[in-house]
Amino acid sequence: MSRATASPQTARQVPPDILPQDDPYYLEESLFAVRDRTLSLVKGLSDADATVQSMTDASPAKWHLAHTTWFFETLILVPFLKGYRPFDDTYGYLFNSYYERIGDRHPRDRRGMLTRPSLDEIRAYRAHVDAALGKLFSTRLPNSETVDLIELGMHHEQQHQELLLTDLLHLFAQNPLSPVYRMIKPGHSHEPARTDQSAVVWHEYEGGLCEIGAASDGFTYDNERPRHSVHLAPFSLADRPVTGGDWIRFIEDGGYDNPLLWLADGWALVQQENWRHPIYWRQCEGVWKAMTLGGLLPVDRSAPVSHISYFEAAAYAQWAGARLPREAEWEMAAMRLSGNAVKTANFLESGTMRPDALRAAADRQHQGPRQMFGDVWEWTQSSYCAYPGFKPLQGAAEEYNGKFMCGQFVLKGGSCATPRSHIRASYRNFFYPHQRWQFSGLRLAKDL
Amino acid sequence: MSRATASPQTARQVPPDILPQDDPYYLEESLFAVRDRTLSLVKGLSDADATVQSMTDASPAKWHLAHTTWFFETLILVPFLKGYRPFDDTYGYLFNSYYERIGDRHPRDRRGMLTRPSLDEIRAYRAHVDAALGKLFSTRLPNSETVDLIELGMHHEQQHQELLLTDLLHLFAQNPLSPVYRMIKPGHSHEPARTDQSAVVWHEYEGGLCEIGAASDGFTYDNERPRHSVHLAPFSLADRPVTGGDWIRFIEDGGYDNPLLWLADGWALVQQENWRHPIYWRQCEGVWKAMTLGGLLPVDRSAPVSHISYFEAAAYAQWAGARLPREAEWEMAAMRLSGNAVKTANFLESGTMRPDALRAAADRQHQGPRQMFGDVWEWTQSSYCAYPGFKPLQGAAEEYNGKFMCGQFVLKGGSCATPRSHIRASYRNFFYPHQRWQFSGLRLAKDL
Amino acid sequence: MSRATASPQTARQVPPDILPQDDPYYLEESLFAVRDRTLSLVKGLSDADATVQSMTDASPAKWHLAHTTWFFETLILVPFLKGYRPFDDTYGYLFNSYYERIGDRHPRDRRGMLTRPSLDEIRAYRAHVDAALGKLFSTRLPNSETVDLIELGMHHEQQHQELLLTDLLHLFAQNPLSPVYRMIKPGHSHEPARTDQSAVVWHEYEGGLCEIGAASDGFTYDNERPRHSVHLAPFSLADRPVTGGDWIRFIEDGGYDNPLLWLADGWALVQQENWRHPIYWRQCEGVWKAMTLGGLLPVDRSAPVSHISYFEAAAYAQWAGARLPREAEWEMAAMRLSGNAVKTANFLESGTMRPDALRAAADRQHQGPRQMFGDVWEWTQSSYCAYPGFKPLQGAAEEYNGKFMCGQFVLKGGSCATPRSHIRASYRNFFYPHQRWQFSGLRLAKDL
Amino acid sequence: MSRATASPQTARQVPPDILPQDDPYYLEESLFAVRDRTLSLVKGLSDADATVQSMTDASPAKWHLAHTTWFFETLILVPFLKGYRPFDDTYGYLFNSYYERIGDRHPRDRRGMLTRPSLDEIRAYRAHVDAALGKLFSTRLPNSETVDLIELGMHHEQQHQELLLTDLLHLFAQNPLSPVYRMIKPGHSHEPARTDQSAVVWHEYEGGLCEIGAASDGFTYDNERPRHSVHLAPFSLADRPVTGGDWIRFIEDGGYDNPLLWLADGWALVQQENWRHPIYWRQCEGVWKAMTLGGLLPVDRSAPVSHISYFEAAAYAQWAGARLPREAEWEMAAMRLSGNAVKTANFLESGTMRPDALRAAADRQHQGPRQMFGDVWEWTQSSYCAYPGFKPLQGAAEEYNGKFMCGQFVLKGGSCATPRSHIRASYRNFFYPHQRWQFSGLRLAKDL
Repeated sequence: MSRATASPQTARQVPPDILPQDDPYYLEESLFAVRDRTLSLVKGLSDADATVQSMTDASPAKWHLAHTTWFFETLILVPFLKGYRPFDDTYGYLFNSYYERIGDRHPRDRRGMLTRPSLDEIRAYRAHVDAALGKLFSTRLPNSETVDLIELGMHHEQQHQELLLTDLLHLFAQNPLSPVYRMIKPGHSHEPARTDQSAVVWHEYEGGLCEIGAASDGFTYDNERPRHSVHLAPFSLADRPVTGGDWIRFIEDGGYDNPLLWLADGWALVQQENWRHPIYWRQCEGVWKAMTLGGLLPVDRSAPVSHISYFEAAAYAQWAGARLPREAEWEMAAMRLSGNAVKTANFLESGTMRPDALRAAADRQHQGPRQMFGDVWEWTQSSYCAYPGFKPLQGAAEEYNGKFMCGQFVLKGGSCATPRSHIRASYRNFFYPHQRWQFSGLRLAKDL
Repeated sequence: MSRATASPQTARQVPPDILPQDDPYYLEESLFAVRDRTLSLVKGLSDADATVQSMTDASPAKWHLAHTTWFFETLILVPFLKGYRPFDDTYGYLFNSYYERIGDRHPRDRRGMLTRPSLDEIRAYRAHVDAALGKLFSTRLPNSETVDLIELGMHHEQQHQELLLTDLLHLFAQNPLSPVYRMIKPGHSHEPARTDQSAVVWHEYEGGLCEIGAASDGFTYDNERPRHSVHLAPFSLADRPVTGGDWIRFIEDGGYDNPLLWLADGWALVQQENWRHPIYWRQCEGVWKAMTLGGLLPVDRSAPVSHISYFEAAAYAQWAGARLPREAEWEMAAMRLSGNAVKTANFLESGTMRPDALRAAADRQHQGPRQMFGDVWEWTQSSYCAYPGFKPLQGAAEEYNGKFMCGQFVLKGGSCATPRSHIRASYRNFFYPHQRWQFSGLRLAKDL
Repeated sequence: MSRATASPQTARQVPPDILPQDDPYYLEESLFAVRDRTLSLVKGLSDADATVQSMTDASPAKWHLAHTTWFFETLILVPFLKGYRPFDDTYGYLFNSYYERIGDRHPRDRRGMLTRPSLDEIRAYRAHVDAALGKLFSTRLPNSETVDLIELGMHHEQQHQELLLTDLLHLFAQNPLSPVYRMIKPGHSHEPARTDQSAVVWHEYEGGLCEIGAASDGFTYDNERPRHSVHLAPFSLADRPVTGGDWIRFIEDGGYDNPLLWLADGWALVQQENWRHPIYWRQCEGVWKAMTLGGLLPVDRSAPVSHISYFEAAAYAQWAGARLPREAEWEMAAMRLSGNAVKTANFLESGTMRPDALRAAADRQHQGPRQMFGDVWEWTQSSYCAYPGFKPLQGAAEEYNGKFMCGQFVLKGGSCATPRSHIRASYRNFFYPHQRWQFSGLRLAKDL
Repeated sequence: MSRATASPQTARQVPPDILPQDDPYYLEESLFAVRDRTLSLVKGLSDADATVQSMTDASPAKWHLAHTTWFFETLILVPFLKGYRPFDDTYGYLFNSYYERIGDRHPRDRRGMLTRPSLDEIRAYRAHVDAALGKLFSTRLPNSETVDLIELGMHHEQQHQELLLTDLLHLFAQNPLSPVYRMIKPGHSHEPARTDQSAVVWHEYEGGLCEIGAASDGFTYDNERPRHSVHLAPFSLADRPVTGGDWIRFIEDGGYDNPLLWLADGWALVQQENWRHPIYWRQCEGVWKAMTLGGLLPVDRSAPVSHISYFEAAAYAQWAGARLPREAEWEMAAMRLSGNAVKTANFLESGTMRPDALRAAADRQHQGPRQMFGDVWEWTQSSYCAYPGFKPLQGAAEEYNGKFMCGQFVLKGGSCATPRSHIRASYRNFFYPHQRWQFSGLRLAKDL
C-alpha cells in the first residue's frame, strides 16, 4: 500500500474552489472558481452524453449546467442587476427544479427529452450569466442579501457538481460499452488488503451531552442549524469504512439471501429487484468488477465499498453484529478530528474519481477514525429531520431543504465527487433508503 | 357541551381486559378476557364481512381472529404443551404474518382470497386453542419464558383488535351502502364548537434533559426500551387535538391546494391521488359527512379529526404556523399527566367507536393537555427508530418490531379503537406517512 | 376407455333448459328453468365464497346472481310491468355491468367489496323479480318487444352461469386449500391415451364459397348476424382437440422456452409472468395436477387440455406444425355435423364440470371431427369483429356486443360449463389473447 | 385551393429511390439510393437529437441508422462477403431489434441510453457497410438468395425511414420549444375548406368475389402473400379522407365525451389518459394547433387529419353514422385506381412532411376515391392476421412479420413520410389500436 502512504497527504492539498470568508477576494473569486469547475466537468462529453436522462432521480449534465445558472439568473440577476435581460424567456420554465413559489416547470422525469437547447447553447447561457454576475460585482457593492444568495448559489452549484458526476456514471452504467469518463488509476483488486489495515479498530466515545449542528461562522445550510444539544449514550465507531473486500465476504456468506438481516422494506426490494450486489457491480468470469467513472474496473478490495443503499448498509451492519452510527455520533466524532482530516481527504479536487484504498495510519488508536471525510458518503441510521428551532431560508429559497424532511436518511462526510470546500462535520446529505447511485458507503458503530 | 362534562369521567371506568401484574389472576384472567374481547368484536359480522380484504394494508377480520390464535399455537402450545396437536396443519402457512424465521406464508395481499376456512371454522380454531391454553395453565406452572410469551401474545392480540376495527371500517367505506357496524351516538356537527373549548391553549415546557422509554415495571415492547436520556429544547404543546371544525377551516382556506404547505412527497401524493379531504370524508349537498363504524354520519366539528395521514398532519401544522411534536416532547408531557388521564380516556372499552368531542376542563392551564390518551393516535414528527441500546426480543418473536424501523413515523396515545390496558406514555405506534386508515389525528406543538 | 364408448351418447340426453321455440310453453318455462339453474349453481357456497372477487376479470357469484336479475328488472319489469317497484333503489348502481346508456355503476374492479347485500338478500331479490316476471306472464300477453328482451335475458343469464363457474374456479384456485366445489369423477391421468384414439386424423375440406353466421330461425345474438358468404381456401381440421397428454409433450419439449414458437406479445408475457404450464396446473412430486371444480386432481391426459390462453394455443400449433382454425372454417365444419353432435356433447347439464376424455369413434373419417361442441371452447385465429352488415341491438341492449370488437379472438363450440341450449355453430365467444380462466382449449388446422 | 390543382400532379414526379425491377441497374442503384435517402433524413440533427428515445415505441434516429445497417451486415455481408470483418463486435448486440434466432439484444426500452457510439461513429459504420456492399456487387454476381435479402434489406430500410421521421416528431413534440425539423409550407387553417371539395361523395362497389394480396411480380412482403379470394358484400367508400376540419366538428360535438361512440377499450383509455384531441394537437388561445415536423402550426382544416388512434378513428366513424373500411374493401378499391394515383400522391419524396390539403377533382364520381395513397395511413377495421396459406420468410428473416399477428389493425396506402417505391395496394401496415404517433388517419365506408 505504498501508493497510499506517501502521496495523498500532500496530493490532496489542491486549493479548494471556495476561499475562506475572510479572504478579500472571497466572494467573487470563489464564485467564478466554482462556475469554472462545473464547466470543466463536462469536458469531453458529447451533446448526447449531456442530454440523456437515465432515470427520474438523475438529471442530464446539460440540465445541471443550466439549472445552476438559472438559479443565479432568477434569484440574483433579475431582482438585483438593473437592466438585466434573461438569456431566453423559456429557460425559466425549462430549468426550475422544484420551486413551487417561483413558478411552473418542466416535469422532472422529462428532462431528458430536451435535445434542444444544445450543450453549446447552454454554454452560451452560462457565459451570458457569468458576464452579468461580473457586472454585478463591478457596478455595486453586494449587500448582505445578495451576498447570502451568491453564497447559496455557489454551494448549490457544488451540490450539482457531484450530482452531475453521479448521474453521468449512472447513464454510462446503462451502456453495454461501459464508456470511460476519465482515465483513472487502477485500484487494489488482486492483492488482499493488508491485515493490519483492514482489521477494524474501534474508537470508544463516552457519550453524554454534546452539541451538534452548525457553529456560527461560515456558510452553512438552514438544515444544519441551529446548533443544539443532544444526549448520547456511550458508543464506539469503527476506525475505517467497510471495504469492497468486506462486501465480497458479505455476499459470499449469503448476505443477499437471508431475510433476517434485512429491514422488511429492504427485503421486499431485494426480492422484487433481485439485488445480489451493489448496483454497479457485476461478476465477469468469477471476478467482481464495478462500473466506475473510469469504465468497468475490478472491484478494489482495499477501498471503501460504494454505491450501496441504506437497506444494504443496514443489512451489512446486522450481519457484522454492529449497527449504523447515529448522525450525532458521527458528527461528534468528526468534530474531534484534526483539521487535517478534511484537507487530506479524497474529494473531487483530487481527480481520483473513485474512493481511495484505506490509508495507512501510524497510530490508529490515537489518530481517530480514518477517512471519515471524502471517499464515500456514510449512511447514518438517522432520519433526515428538522433540528429543534429549525427555520427555513426566507424568500425564494424557502423550499431549499425543509420540504424533503420525510423518509430520507442522513449521510455524512462527503465523497470523492464532493468539492472539498463544500463539506464540514455538520453537513447533512440525505437520500431515500433504496437509492444507490451516489458514492454511498458505511462505517460501523456499536453500543458500549 | 353538557354531554361531555358529566358522564365520561365515570363512564370510562370500565375495567380493562388486562389486570395489573400483581393481581393473583393476572395472567390467566387477562388472557381470556383479551381472547373474549376479540370474539366480541366480530359479533354481527357475516362470513363475507369477515373474509374480504379491502386493500393490502388491511386484513380480513377472520384473518385477525386466526392469526392471533396461530401466535399462541405456534409460539406457546407447540413448544410448551406436551402432546398438543395443531388444529390444522395448513394453518401455519395460512396465518403466519411476517415471521421469516418461522416459515413460509400466504402472501399478504392474497389474504382476502381465503373464503375457506369459514368464520365458523376459525371460531372452532380459537376454541381449540383456548382450551389448550386453559390446559397449559392447569397442568403446569408457567415458567418465565412462557409467561413472557403469553404476555406478548395478549398484547399482540390487542393490537389486532384495533386493526380488526380499522380494517373493517376501511372495507365498509368501500361499499356504497355505507354499512353500519355498530349504532353510535351522533356527534356535534351542527352546533359550532364552544369558543372557550376550541381556542387552543398552549402548555409550555422548559426542556432540558429528560428520560423517555419504558420504565422497568409491567409489560412493554422491545421498541420502548431501554429508558434513556434525551435533551429537549423548550417547547409548547396545544392543550387539545385538532378538531373536525379546524379541519374544515383548513380545507376552506385552500389547504389541499397550496404546495407550499406540504412536504414534497406529500404534495406529489395530493396531486396523484387527488386528495381533497380526510379519507372517509365526503361532501353531500354541502354537508361534510364521514364514514364511521356507525355508518355515514355528519362530521363532528367538536371532536378530534381522524383518519388523516402524516402528510396531511404536517401540512395542517405548517398552515397553522406550528409544527408536530417530537415523540420525546409528547411522551414527557404525557408522563406529567395524572393517572386519571388514561383512566378517563375514550378507548375501545367505552364502546363509542369514534373520537369524543372535546371535553370541558375546569382549569385548562393547570390540568395539562386534554385527551392525549384515547380518541385519536397523534402523529409525531419523529421517525420510528431504535432507541440507543435497543435489543430485539430473542427467539421466534425477534422480528416483532425491529425490522420495521424505516420510513415510518411514531404515533402516540392510542385511539377510541385501542384497548385501555394496551396503552402507556412510552407506547410507540408507527405508520407510513401516506397511511390514513387508522384513527390518526394530531396535536400541535411550537418552539419556544 | 370403456367409460367413453357406451354411456355418454345417452347420458347427455338431459333436457336443455331452453325449450324449442315452437313449444307452447317455450318462453315461460324456459325462463324459469334458466333462473332455477342459476340458483342451483350456488348451492353449497358460503356467503364468503359468493362475495370475493379474485381478479378484475372475474366477478363474485353473488354479483352474477344479482346482475342477471337486474337485467330483467331494468329492461323488462320497470318499463313493462305496470306498478312494478324495484326491490332496492341502490341495486341499479350496484349491479349494472357496463351499460353507459343506463347509467353510472359500481366500478368493475370493486365488485368484491360488496359484503352487503348478503347472499340471502340477493336470493330474496331474485325471488322478488321472479314473482314479478310470473305476474308479467299472467297479466298480459308478451308483445314482440318483451319476448325479444326476455329471450335475451335468459340467454344473457346462461352466459353468466358459465362465468359464475369459471370465476369460482379462479377464486378457489387462489386458495392453498384447493377447495372442492363439486365432487367429480376422476379422469385418466395414469393410463396413456389409447393410440387409436389419440393419433390425430385430419378431415379435409375443399373450401370455396360458404355461408356462415346465424340462420334465420331461433334466438341468436346480434354479433352472429347477418348470415353472409365467405370464401375459404382448402384446409383440414383435426378430428379431436389437443389433450392434456399432448400438452405435457409440448412442455417436455421446451415449448415454454422457445421464443420462435410464440407470438411476440405472447413471448413477452411468458417471460414477464413466468408461464410454464396452463394456469391451473402445478407439478406435485413429478405428477402434473390441475385445479378443477372438483379440487386438485391429476391432469387427465386423455381429455382436452383446458384453461390455456390464445398465446399458448398459437404456440402449440406452431410447435405442432399446424395452425389454429379460422372461425369460418370451424363453423362450416361444425354445420356439417349431425344434430347429435350437440345433443351428446359434454355441456353444463352433464354435471361433469370438466372436459371429458376423448370419446371413441367407430368410423373417425366418416363421422367428422369429434367433440367440437362442449368440453372446451376452441380458440380460432379469427379476431372478434363485426360481420358485414352487422347491426347492434336497438335500445338499452345496444351495447351488448359491439363495443367489445377490438383485440379479442373468437372461440367456438361451448364447454363443459356452457348450457346446452346456449350453443350453436354460429355462436361467437370472445376473449383477449392473454386470458386463461375460461374452459378454453384448441383444435389444430392446416392449409391444404 | 389553386395550389392543389396545378402543381402536385407534376411536383410529385420525383423519381422513386427503388427503380423498376427490370431496370438493368435496379438492385445496386436502388440500394444506394435508399441508403443515401436515410442519411439525408438526419441532416441538421444534432448528436443529441439522434440519441434520445422519447418512448418505448419509438427509437432514436441513430438507432434506425445503425439497425438498418446491421441488417445488411448480419444477413448479407457476414454470410456472403468473403473476408468481411464486422465494423464493431458489440454492434450485433446493440442493434439487433427483435430477432430471437440471431441472438441477444439490447432491451428495446433502453435504446435511448446509448450516447455512445456517437452519430458520427454510426455514420462511419454506414460507410463501412456501404463500401462492403459495393464490394459485394463488384466481386460476385448476386445469387437469388442474396438478391432476395438485398431487396428485403432496402425495403426494410424504407420502413425505418418513415419510423425515423415519426419517432423524431414524437421526440420534438415532448419539447416545450417545439423544435422545427424542416421548414414546411403553411396549410389551410383559416380558410374554410371549399364546399365542393369537402362534402363526402360515396363511391359504390358491388362486392362479390375478388382477389387481394400480392400479385406475383415485384418485391412484396410475406404478409401480403398469397393472393387469394375474398367475398365482399356491397359497400361504399368515401371519396376523401376525414379532414382536420371534420375532426374539429367531432370535438365540438362532444366526440371525446360520449361513451356510446367508443369501443369499450377505447373509452377506458380516453378516460385514463384524458384524451381530448389528436395526440399532437393543442388549443392555443382558441386556435387549434398541431405539432408537426415544421414545428407548431395551425391545424390545416382542409388536409386529412393525422396522428389518431384506431380507437379515435372508430369513434369518429360511429359519430358519422358510418364505419371503417375492411382491408379487402380498401384494397379492391385501390386496385381499380389508375397508376397515376400512386405517382401523384404525397409521399416522402415530395418533401412536404405533412398531409396535403384535399386536391380538386374534375370529376369526382368518375375518378374514384382521392388521396388513397400518401398523406396519411388509413385505418381499416381488419385485424392484422395471416392470409390463408401464409408462409413466413425462411431463415434469419423468418421473424420479420408473422410474430406480430395479434392485436394490431391494418393500415393502408402509405403517408407523407413513406417512400413512394415502398407502397402498393396490397401493402399492409399494422399498429395497435391505441397508437397515435404515426401519420394515421381514416376514410369512411358504409354497407350498402
